Amino acid sequence: MASTEQESSQTPANLNKKQAKKEAQKVERLRKQQEAAAAAAATALASAEADPFSGNYGDVPTEEIQSKAVSGRQWTEIGSLDAELAERTVLIRGAAQAIRSVSKKMAFLVVRQYVSTVQCVLVVNKEWVSPQMVKFATGLSKESIVDVEGVVSIPKDPIKGTTQQVEVQVRKLYCINRAMPNLPINIEDAARSEMEFEKAEQIFRRFLLSEGFVGIHTPKLVPGSSEGGAAVFKLDYKGQPACLAQSPQLYKQMAICGGFGRVFEVGSVFRAEDSYTHRHLCEFVGLDVEMEIKEHYFEVCDVVDRLFVAMFDYLNENCKKELDSINRQNPFEPLKYLRNTLRLTFLEGVEMLKEAGIEVDPFGDLNTEAEKTLGRLVREKYDTDFYILYRYPLAVRPFYTMPCYDDPAYSNSFDVFIRGEEIISGAQRVHLPELLTKRAEACGIDVKTIATYIDSFRYGAPPHGGFGVGLERVVMLFCALNNIRKTSLFPRDPQRLVP
Amino acid sequence: MASTEQESSQTPANLNKKQAKKEAQKVERLRKQQEAAAAAAATALASAEADPFSGNYGDVPTEEIQSKAVSGRQWTEIGSLDAELAERTVLIRGAAQAIRSVSKKMAFLVVRQYVSTVQCVLVVNKEWVSPQMVKFATGLSKESIVDVEGVVSIPKDPIKGTTQQVEVQVRKLYCINRAMPNLPINIEDAARSEMEFEKAEQIFRRFLLSEGFVGIHTPKLVPGSSEGGAAVFKLDYKGQPACLAQSPQLYKQMAICGGFGRVFEVGSVFRAEDSYTHRHLCEFVGLDVEMEIKEHYFEVCDVVDRLFVAMFDYLNENCKKELDSINRQNPFEPLKYLRNTLRLTFLEGVEMLKEAGIEVDPFGDLNTEAEKTLGRLVREKYDTDFYILYRYPLAVRPFYTMPCYDDPAYSNSFDVFIRGEEIISGAQRVHLPELLTKRAEACGIDVKTIATYIDSFRYGAPPHGGFGVGLERVVMLFCALNNIRKTSLFPRDPQRLVP
Repeated sequence: MASTEQESSQTPANLNKKQAKKEAQKVERLRKQQEAAAAAAATALASAEADPFSGNYGDVPTEEIQSKAVSGRQWTEIGSLDAELAERTVLIRGAAQAIRSVSKKMAFLVVRQYVSTVQCVLVVNKEWVSPQMVKFATGLSKESIVDVEGVVSIPKDPIKGTTQQVEVQVRKLYCINRAMPNLPINIEDAARSEMEFEKAEQIFRRFLLSEGFVGIHTPKLVPGSSEGGAAVFKLDYKGQPACLAQSPQLYKQMAICGGFGRVFEVGSVFRAEDSYTHRHLCEFVGLDVEMEIKEHYFEVCDVVDRLFVAMFDYLNENCKKELDSINRQNPFEPLKYLRNTLRLTFLEGVEMLKEAGIEVDPFGDLNTEAEKTLGRLVREKYDTDFYILYRYPLAVRPFYTMPCYDDPAYSNSFDVFIRGEEIISGAQRVHLPELLTKRAEACGIDVKTIATYIDSFRYGAPPHGGFGVGLERVVMLFCALNNIRKTSLFPRDPQRLVP
Repeated sequence: MASTEQESSQTPANLNKKQAKKEAQKVERLRKQQEAAAAAAATALASAEADPFSGNYGDVPTEEIQSKAVSGRQWTEIGSLDAELAERTVLIRGAAQAIRSVSKKMAFLVVRQYVSTVQCVLVVNKEWVSPQMVKFATGLSKESIVDVEGVVSIPKDPIKGTTQQVEVQVRKLYCINRAMPNLPINIEDAARSEMEFEKAEQIFRRFLLSEGFVGIHTPKLVPGSSEGGAAVFKLDYKGQPACLAQSPQLYKQMAICGGFGRVFEVGSVFRAEDSYTHRHLCEFVGLDVEMEIKEHYFEVCDVVDRLFVAMFDYLNENCKKELDSINRQNPFEPLKYLRNTLRLTFLEGVEMLKEAGIEVDPFGDLNTEAEKTLGRLVREKYDTDFYILYRYPLAVRPFYTMPCYDDPAYSNSFDVFIRGEEIISGAQRVHLPELLTKRAEACGIDVKTIATYIDSFRYGAPPHGGFGVGLERVVMLFCALNNIRKTSLFPRDPQRLVP
C-alpha cells in the first residue's frame, strides 16, 4: 500500500517541549476526570442489572462500534423531524447538548445533530422505561454521543430551546461515546463561522463557473529565497532554496497566456506577517481571479461588482439563521451596498479626505486610518459600505501593473473596500514583455531573476487583469466581526501554530 | 492600501544563479528575435501608408490596450460561431494559430479562443481588403493575439482543421500583441489535462455537497519538526519549528468532533518524497473526506463507490472531446468499472495472488508489483479495473486506524485501486481516547506530543471514518497516462521547482 494516509501518521508528533509538558499535565487531569465518569457509569450499569428493561439502554460495547455489522436500520436526521412524522418511531444520533432531571421518573434530553436540536422525553412507564433508565440518562455527560429510539409527538406548547418543534418519547437510549464532564469550548462557536465561510466560497465558485472561469491549482512551493519585499516562509527543497507562495499571481497570469481565458483559484496563501492585528493571518484562503480583457480593466471591476453583489444578496437571503446567530453574539449593522457598485478614482478619494481636513499625498498610498475615514465619508455621501477606488498611483502598485495610457504616474488598478477596510486588490497587468522589463528595472528588480515570467508573455499574451481576495477577511467584514480569527477554524498568526 | 497583491511583487525574484545566467542568455536571444519581428512589422506598416484601406488593419498602439476607453463593442465567442450567424458581421479575439498565404491576394488565418478555432479568409476586394492588408496578415507570427472583424459565411465543403464549421470573411484585422516567431511549447498540451482535472474536481465537489458534506479549509502550516515517518518539508515559523502538512487528517477529524457531521477538503498536500517515479509528486491536490459513521466503515466505502461511479460516468458522457484528444496523443483502453464496486478482503487478495504463484505475507503490506498483479487477476476474474480491497493488517496502517472487532491483527480499513494502482486509502478511525492512546503507544509514538489530538476525542466524539485521494493520480489512472506530470500544470517533483 503506497498509502496517502499512512505517511501522515507522524504529523501530530509535533509540539515543542514546553507545550508538551503542559499538555501532559492536562492529559493526566483529563484522564482522572474520565476515570471518575467511567466509574459512575459502571455503578449505573450495576444497578441496572436487576432491571427488566435493561436491554433498552446502556453504553454500547466497543466492539459494536468497530464496524461489526450492518444492521440495515435507518437513522432519521434531527433536522427533518417535524409534525408529519407524528406517531412514528424514529432512530436518531447526536450529541447530548442538555440533560435535565425532573424527578426520579422523568428527564429531558436535548440532542443535537449539526445545527438542529430536538427535545427527547423520558418518562417511566410499564413498557419501555424504568427508573434505572432515567438515572442512566441523567448520569450522561453533556456532549456524549447517543442513539435515541422513540416516538415523535407534538407538544401542547411550542418548544423554545430547540430548533425542532416536535418531541421524541424515548423508548431506547444508548450511549455511543461518553464525553468528558467538563467541556473546554463552546462547540457551536467553532462551527458557526466556518459554515458562513463555506457559503461564501460556494457562491464565489458557482458565480465564476457560470461566467466561464476555469478553476486551477498552482504550486505553493516556489523557488528562491525571496529578496526584500514582504516576508516569506523559507524552506529547503531537496537542496534548493524555496519558499511558500505568497500569491498565485505569476502562475495565474501564465495560465492566461496558456490560453485559459478566465481562471480562478481557491487555495492556501502564506504570509510571514509580523503584524499581530485584528486583520492579518499568516496563512489564509485566497480567492484569486485572472481574466483576459478586451479593452479596459473595468471589465475586471464588472466581475467584482456582479460577484460581490450576488454574494451579499445570497448571504442575506439564504443565511438568515446563521447571520442571526452571529448577530446575537456580535451585534452588527447589515452591510449597505448598491445595485451597481460605486466607483471613485483615487484622486476623488484624496479630494474627499482633503475636504474633511485630511491631507494625503496624491502620489502615495492611503494608510489604514485614511482608508477608515474615507469609508465613513463615502457612507455619508453615497450610502454604501462597499465601493471601488481605482486609478492608484503607479508607485504604490507592483511592477507588473499596467500604467494609465494618459498619465504614467497613475495605474490601471483598483482596491475594493468593505466598511472602510480593503478586501480586494486588482489591476490590469502588463502583458508586453518590453514594458514589463522596463517596469521591473524601474522598480529595482533584477530582470534576469524573473526571466521565465517575462518570457511567458513573448508567445502570444492577451491583455488581461485580475484580482485577489482573502476569504476570511470578506467574512469578517461582511459580518463586522472584530477579529479575523473568528472566521477561521484553526487560525495561524505570528504566535499561533497549534492546533 | 494594505494590498494582498502588493506584497507578492517579489515572488519571481527567485531563481538560483546558474538558472539566472542561463535565462539571461535566453532572454537576450529572444529579445533579438523579437526586435527582428518588430522591424518586419514596421516595414509592413510603412508600405501600408499609401494604402486607402490602411485603417482596416495594423498593430494596435500600446495606449489603446492600456484601458483607454470602453467602446461598447461586443466580441463574439469563437465557440459560438455557427450557421445561425451567417451574413452577420462579428468581432472576435483570439490567437493566430495558423497563417497560410495562398497568393498575394488571398490568405487564411485560423484563430483560436480557448478550445475553439475558426477559419478566417482574407481576399483582396474593393471595399475592405488591400494587398498590403493580406501582406500584413501573412507577416503575423503564430500565436499573436488578433482582433478580427468580418462576415460569417458558410463554406461549400466541410472544414477539417477547425472546430467551427463556418468561415469569417475578414474586413478588419488588428494585432493586439505579437508573439515570438518561434514558440517553445505546444499550448494545447498544457491546457488539455488541466481541463480534465477541473472536471474531476467539479464532480467531486458537486457530489459531496449533494450528499450533505461541508467544505472546510485546514492549515498547511503545522507545528513541529516531524520525528520519523515520511519526510516532511520543515521551516521556521517565527522561531517555532514547523512543517508543511502532509495531510489534513487530524484537522478533518477534529472538525468531525466539532459537530460538522460530514466534511471534505480540496487543498494542497506536501510530501518531501525522494521517489522520482511516474506517480509521485512533492506537492499535489488532495481530496480529503471525513464523515460520521453509524455502524460500519462500509458507509464510507459506499460514498467512495457512488462518488467514483458518478465521476467516471460523467467523464465518459460529458468529456468525450477531451478524452478523444488525450486518446490521440496517448491511446488508452476505457476504464472498466461495475455499477456496484467490487469489494474484496485483503485475505481474498492474498489468496488470489497465492493461486497465481505469488506468496505474500498475510500480516504485511502489498508492494507495488503485487498490487499490479492483483489488478490484472481481478480484471480477468471480475472484469473491472476499479475495486476496493478492505480489512488490511493493522500493522501496516496508521495508529489511528480502528482495529477489527473480531481480530485485532486486522483493521477497519480499505484501499481503492484503479488499473492495479492504489488511489485511495481510507478507514474507520479510533474515536475512543483510551484506545487511541493505547494504539499510539503500541506504534511507538510519544503520546504527550499528540495530546491536543487525543483530547479532541474526549468531548463527545462520534464514530467516524474517511479517505484521501490525490486528484492528479485519479486523472492519471482514469486516462491511463504514463506519467503523473501530465496531469499537473506546474508539477513539483524532487528535481523540479521551476516554474
